[in-house]
This record gives sequence, structure tokens and C-alpha cells, in this order.
Amino acid sequence: MAVYTEVSDEDLTAFAKTFGLGEVLSCKGIAEGVENSNFQLVTETGGYILTLYEKRVDPADLPFFLGLIEHLAAKGVPCPEPVHARDGAVLKTLSGKPAAVVTFLSGMWPRRVHPHHTAELGRALAELHLAGADFGLKRANALSVRSWRGLLDSCQGRGDEVLPGITAELQAELDVLEARWPQDLPSGVIHGDLFPDNVFFRGEKLTGLIDFYFACNDVLAYDIAICLNAWCFEADGSFNATKARKLLRGYVKVRPLSNAELAALPLLARGAAMRFLLTRLFDWLNTPKGALVTPHDPMEYVHKLRFHRAVSGPAAYGLDA
Amino acid sequence: MAVYTEVSDEDLTAFAKTFGLGEVLSCKGIAEGVENSNFQLVTETGGYILTLYEKRVDPADLPFFLGLIEHLAAKGVPCPEPVHARDGAVLKTLSGKPAAVVTFLSGMWPRRVHPHHTAELGRALAELHLAGADFGLKRANALSVRSWRGLLDSCQGRGDEVLPGITAELQAELDVLEARWPQDLPSGVIHGDLFPDNVFFRGEKLTGLIDFYFACNDVLAYDIAICLNAWCFEADGSFNATKARKLLRGYVKVRPLSNAELAALPLLARGAAMRFLLTRLFDWLNTPKGALVTPHDPMEYVHKLRFHRAVSGPAAYGLDA
Repeated sequence: MAVYTEVSDEDLTAFAKTFGLGEVLSCKGIAEGVENSNFQLVTETGGYILTLYEKRVDPADLPFFLGLIEHLAAKGVPCPEPVHARDGAVLKTLSGKPAAVVTFLSGMWPRRVHPHHTAELGRALAELHLAGADFGLKRANALSVRSWRGLLDSCQGRGDEVLPGITAELQAELDVLEARWPQDLPSGVIHGDLFPDNVFFRGEKLTGLIDFYFACNDVLAYDIAICLNAWCFEADGSFNATKARKLLRGYVKVRPLSNAELAALPLLARGAAMRFLLTRLFDWLNTPKGALVTPHDPMEYVHKLRFHRAVSGPAAYGLDA
Repeated sequence: MAVYTEVSDEDLTAFAKTFGLGEVLSCKGIAEGVENSNFQLVTETGGYILTLYEKRVDPADLPFFLGLIEHLAAKGVPCPEPVHARDGAVLKTLSGKPAAVVTFLSGMWPRRVHPHHTAELGRALAELHLAGADFGLKRANALSVRSWRGLLDSCQGRGDEVLPGITAELQAELDVLEARWPQDLPSGVIHGDLFPDNVFFRGEKLTGLIDFYFACNDVLAYDIAICLNAWCFEADGSFNATKARKLLRGYVKVRPLSNAELAALPLLARGAAMRFLLTRLFDWLNTPKGALVTPHDPMEYVHKLRFHRAVSGPAAYGLDA
């Protein structure tokens, strides 16, 4: 739940004019997402999403994010497309914040994931990876394996307030991840946060990928590992191998995985679980009680991490190695 | 800022089918309003607002609210129109809550009020009063003069935490209001909460009146008094007589005011200030620190109440008595 910045109708009218959007018919704050202020904007010329970038996004990264979705959209990836202002810019200022307008994508994100969703997801993720290959800008992954030790240290042992012994368990896990993290797998642009609420469907058809604000350059198969974590566990914590198989099969139809990539999947999945576990743990320990945003429970990712640590090989994800 | 209830895509699809709305293209929670969960819904057949009624609304009142806007819309008042389900009902259940769908109104509410806004407001308010005259249902005003003493008592003297001496001042004010409150002015359906954020404009034209969840039967001129408070004070607390004059002139062009109604305006305006002062004071004293919703500052209405108490007659509002 968000909308941190109020936009006046007069400022908005002037802003819309800068972009040649026509008369503003309505503009309502969207109560989803926590990083930025998002508005559903309807003008004479169509539907848009207006985003005001709040302090959690580094303005220096905005050319990467906006350039990337423009690049991907031009290659047919169903992602929002930045609208250019009349002077050519995609980034302007509104209510004192960096602001951009992107095209509106129809579709709903799946509250309950079915296997047909993950098949489409795998296909779309592979298409995203292929389409990103010739994007000119680079952005390092601020939440890569190199950052995790520091993130755990910043929790100052307080992880044990959530689960006794977890700090030691994660330190041992980091020893393994740091030692064995693959160095030479194919890399490129990854989405980095492709959870169900960032993927829209109409019926069984995938119609949109949104929220590229964690996109960066990293190992491509790590993006698959993030999706295995985000899409293939049931609410009771069990792993749904059918959803994983459909995800991987959808992916390899578009971009085949090498044996090295397949062999690395369990370790990459441990890493992906670690990344979300650590950011959730940090937020959990540092969000004041009664705050606007309820932090996600880090325990969900403790269980996921343990699952991936116990698998014997990539066959656990439903694909023959 | 709201959206308290999450709606699954599957439940929503079934719900939209009940209403014959066609395929759901998108549904996003709106981060405005605090009483209910509101969603901007787009389907094949158009744009709608989906509302899930949360516990602050009494379900027994919903037939009045939904029936009223249907009645008003049929008479040309620009308010949302309830959509009937295929079985004829306007009220259904979604995610365990009473839920309704109304048509989407374009327009933006004015963050900065100009005199042309209040002229249109006055005209629309009078049209609303005339159109409501033959509405068949009745609803008592739960926040009428009769309720104010109890509301002040429920603050248990803690009003003095906001402003020393305010409790005694309000008790003396209530003595006057209760003794002099007019008994025989024309009454009918009033909106009861027509603040700027409930009125949409496109350019200078008023395009929508929304949020009828305080509508009830009461003195019609009291609705004008609410608008004098909500629309005619500047941010620095000063009263803008030009805005008031335009409001009243816009109103009387459609529904002339009797001498008795005009003479009662200062007292009704004191009452309206008291009503919002008391609910704000109660919320201010009873909202936990760091809560989701920041309560409005009751002091704004202390100043407004004192202004109205000091006026010598209706001429203060810019209209000749």
C-alpha cells in the first residue's frame, strides 16, 4: 500500500500537457506497491500509470529502468512502455519528485497460482532474457551474493528473535553460497523480482510484466531460481514440482539451458531464497510496530531455503538433468 | 488511504459475471477514502468503481445509499450509478463483504478551490436537494445536533489535551446550538459530507458528486452550511467571502432560500463546524500513534466555529439577507 506524494490537479494538468497526453479525465492513487507512488491515470488518449519515484529508488538508476522497459517493449516483451514528453525526455519532475508515465497494461495478477501460469511465466522470462541481451546500459545487482553477508551482519544477531539459531544457520549457509557461487554462467539483464503480483494475466494468457525496479545484470538462471521460490511453493510450504516443471519447460522452449545452468539451479535457488530471506528479515526487525506497511514474514523463506538445501539435484525441479 | 480487503482474481471474475460486466481487464485498489475498500475496475464494458463495505458502514443503510444514488442519477445528478446484477440486485457479497459496483465518473477533485468551483458546487447542491425530494427511503442523521453532546462527552474532557479550555467552550456552544437549532426549516435528503475530495471537475465544469455514505434526511440549508465550512476557508484560516457568495448565488439560482433559511445560516454553519470538530476531536484522541490513517486536525474546525460565532448575520456569507 503506497501513495506517499499528493499530486495537485493543477500540477498534473501541466504535467500531462508536457507529455501531450490530452485532457486528464481521472487520476487515482493505487494502493499497491511500496517503493513508489503510483497513480492510474486516464486521459483523452488512453490509460497510463504515473509513477513518482520516492526515496527508496536511486534517481541515477532511472535511465536504466526506463531505458530497459522501452527496449524490451520494442522487442515485444509485454511490459509498460515509457511515454516520451514533447521534448523527448521520459523522466520529468512532478510535485518535486522524479516522475514518469508508462502505458497501462490490462490483466490481473494471479492470487492463486496454477500450473498454466508458470508455463507462461517460464516462456515470458526466457523471452525477456533474450530481448535484454542487446540492451546497452548496465546495472550491477545491489542485492547479489556479494551483498548478503553485509545484510546479515546489519541484523546484528537479532535474527534469533525471529528463530533461535537462525543467525548461525545463515552464516554457515553464506559460507557455502560464497564458496560455490557460479562464476561463469550466462549472464545478462534479469528482472530480479518476478513475483506473482508483478505478472498480469487475462485468462491463461500472460499480458504484462511490471515493476522492473530490481532489474540488473546478473546470472540469467538466477532469475529462474527467484521464480522457483516465488511461484512454486504452496501456502502450506510444500513445493509443487508440477509448477516448477512447467516453469522450466516453458523457459527452455525459448532459451535452452546448458548442463552447467541446470546443475547450478539448486544452489541458485538457495541463493534466491537467501536474498529474500535477508531483506525480509532486515525489514521485519526494522519496521516500527503499527507502520503503514506490514513486512513480509521472513520465516517463509527459511523453509524455502531449507528445501533447496536438501534437494539432490535439478531433477527436484521436475526437469531431467 | 484504504483497501482493507484483498480480492482474488478468481472471486472477482465470478463476481463480474454476476453483474454481466464482461471480462475483467484490470482491478486496482484505490488509495483514497478511509471508510471502505474501493477498486478501480476496468472490464470489456467500461470503467467502474467496486466498493467493499467495511465495518464502519452499517449494512442496513446500504439500500438507502445505493437507492439514493440510483434515484439521483436517474434525475440527472452527476453521481455514480449502481450497476444491477443479472438477478436485479445492486448489493452482492465479495470476499465476505457486502459489495456493489457503480459507474465510473471522470474528473478530478480540486486540490485548490477557486471561486468558479463553488459557483458550480452551489448549483449542483441545489439540484441534488430538488432531485432528492421524492426519494422514497428515509435515513435519520446519525451525526445531527442531537448526537453532539454525547460525542463531546465521549471525549471525557480530553479535548483540553488539544486546546486547554476547549471542553468548556464546546459545552457552552452546545447549550446555544441545542436551544436555538431551527425546527421548521425545509428538510429533505442532504449529502452531509460534500468536501472538495467528493466533487469532481473537468476544467470548470462539475462532473461528479461521490461518497454518499453520510447522506440522510435533515435540514437542507445545513448541507449548505457544511459546504461553507468545507470550501470557503483558505489554508491560513481566513474566510473567503467571494467563494461563499458564489456558492450561495449558485444555489439560489436553482432553489431559492427563504428568509428563515438565510437567517439561520450562521447558526447552521456553527453547527456544521461543531459536527466536524467533534468527530475529528474524537478520532484525534482515539487514533493510535503510527496508525494507517492520519486523523484530521480538529483545531481547523475550532477556528471555523469561532468565525461563524462572531458573524453578525447571513450577509457575512456574501449574500444580502
